[in-house]
Amino acid sequence: MGGDRAPGEVVRGAAAAAASDPNLHLFLVGQEDKVRRELDAASWSGSNIDVVHADHVISMSDRPVDALRKKRGSSIETATMMVKQGEAGAFVSAGNTGACVAASTMFLGLLPNVRRAGIAVVMPAGDQPVVVIDAGANVSPKVINLIQYGIMASHYCAEVLQVPEPKVGLLNVGEEGAKGNSLAKEAHTEFVATKVNYIGNVEGGDVFSGGCDVVVCDGFVGNVLLKVSEGLAEHMMGIFRGVLERFAGDFLGGDQQVPSSAAGTSDMQQRMSQVVGGLRQQFDYAEYGGAPLLGVNGVTIIAHGRSDSRAIANAILVARKLVAADFNQRITDALEPFATTKNGA
Amino acid sequence: MGGDRAPGEVVRGAAAAAASDPNLHLFLVGQEDKVRRELDAASWSGSNIDVVHADHVISMSDRPVDALRKKRGSSIETATMMVKQGEAGAFVSAGNTGACVAASTMFLGLLPNVRRAGIAVVMPAGDQPVVVIDAGANVSPKVINLIQYGIMASHYCAEVLQVPEPKVGLLNVGEEGAKGNSLAKEAHTEFVATKVNYIGNVEGGDVFSGGCDVVVCDGFVGNVLLKVSEGLAEHMMGIFRGVLERFAGDFLGGDQQVPSSAAGTSDMQQRMSQVVGGLRQQFDYAEYGGAPLLGVNGVTIIAHGRSDSRAIANAILVARKLVAADFNQRITDALEPFATTKNGA
Repeated sequence: MGGDRAPGEVVRGAAAAAASDPNLHLFLVGQEDKVRRELDAASWSGSNIDVVHADHVISMSDRPVDALRKKRGSSIETATMMVKQGEAGAFVSAGNTGACVAASTMFLGLLPNVRRAGIAVVMPAGDQPVVVIDAGANVSPKVINLIQYGIMASHYCAEVLQVPEPKVGLLNVGEEGAKGNSLAKEAHTEFVATKVNYIGNVEGGDVFSGGCDVVVCDGFVGNVLLKVSEGLAEHMMGIFRGVLERFAGDFLGGDQQVPSSAAGTSDMQQRMSQVVGGLRQQFDYAEYGGAPLLGVNGVTIIAHGRSDSRAIANAILVARKLVAADFNQRITDALEPFATTKNGA
Repeated sequence: MGGDRAPGEVVRGAAAAAASDPNLHLFLVGQEDKVRRELDAASWSGSNIDVVHADHVISMSDRPVDALRKKRGSSIETATMMVKQGEAGAFVSAGNTGACVAASTMFLGLLPNVRRAGIAVVMPAGDQPVVVIDAGANVSPKVINLIQYGIMASHYCAEVLQVPEPKVGLLNVGEEGAKGNSLAKEAHTEFVATKVNYIGNVEGGDVFSGGCDVVVCDGFVGNVLLKVSEGLAEHMMGIFRGVLERFAGDFLGGDQQVPSSAAGTSDMQQRMSQVVGGLRQQFDYAEYGGAPLLGVNGVTIIAHGRSDSRAIANAILVARKLVAADFNQRITDALEPFATTKNGA
């Protein structure tokens, strides 16, 4: 039920993922009549999707914790509890991010040795995408949270993006260790002692330059980074489109009169649409299939609120990958060094 | 002497500004032989530029406070002291930002009622640029600093960008007042009581959407915002250039063979360069002429490290505008309400 384009796009995405693999079994949790209507509209006739009814829907604007308390039996709660009880391997939602984070943390709990969960977002950048963690689960983290985020996201990057030894950078206001606020300064010192391939402080300008694979920051900064990037990319795409149209126009209608035929004009316009489409795709979150909430005892994938069916299908496939790889066991193992100090902090 | 392209571009920019207005008097502070060589190279023959020799240069990578202590008589110190002593009305530099901030704060001091200085950067956005404060002077601000930043930048926006009642937003991770870290939550509450046209929390995506004129944030977040935006814009420009070239290529060399003449090809390429140039200009910091360090008892304009001569000339003209408008008196007046509580905080 969650997301700006739910349930239609979500159901279509689920149907596409289920159709691509008969061994994948999906539960669509939500208001049954609406979900079934969308399945019918998508001409779904397979046997690997079940619909699980949930009475309530947490809206995109609801306050997460309040809504979870008041709307008992919401689709987010129901789906999370299915993971908790082992009925499902993973929870995927394009709904209210705060509610997904709160439900996952409350109902699934954290993995052994993990102090706080963090959202890892894959952003398009240069030749190779970059994983940014935390994108907003925790706006006031402690140093240990940042360290654990770096370790978890390093494993995520290796598993999902197939980067052998991901380069991990700490987002800061300068490259020197002495730069930044106290959180960044301390985290910089502590990162050096971890087993991740820590390359040091990185600046905002390095995020898109391809110099590192994982960027660690607090959830406040990560949220701003993500939304500023989306907003700027959108803004620039709009300007590009206008520029491209004028550019084409110069050669369609100007002195040159080339191509002057209607067919030529149509070819150019069609090609222009392809170009803009291709460009948009290079900045498309849908490619990377949602953001995992790393650290919870279960697999939670938070898809973008604007997810279309392709983004949903990709999110489901990422979820399956993490389940199949027993990814959480790796996180638990990687964070073993933090086990002994857990009670002390 | 400061900046990636100094002293050449800086001197040329100064010469351009001085040539544009005989009532403007400039002092170029730096290694005299180098500065004079650049003036000669720029064929400067006017009488409204003086060269003031300074023995030392603080490099872009020097640690600001250390460098100011060790390199006594640096160009940054000398220029700042000239403002302190009333020999100059304003200090403009494309050099080490931290050193400019530290020198201005230490030597000029703060205006009455101001607790901390903040860097206000004008960013291209939508139809109307947006002022972001603080871009990195203060990475661990208190609530009162953010409030004062909002007030100061609101006046700056009104004066320099000619916006009558600038809409001031607080950068946060959501629009509701209850969102964010403790700094943002408290600042949101306190902003409501100020005289600025406070529109509430804004998210990263709103920075480029034209919904507000002034965005207030801590210096850590502001630095990341600025550098991420520059990096992404650069990255997208590169991609766009490639796309445009392929687009043009389709119509130059493909089946269509239009325009097939050498003249047509050259026209299209020339037009393409214009298009890319025009696009770049829309994201060009140089238009806005450097970032003022608001709150210091003097006018300090920090130009981008990569400033070309046009950016330097614009920075000088902004500095003159602030001096002519007696801008600091307005800041002092606007912050009068903070006078009584000054000793208590």
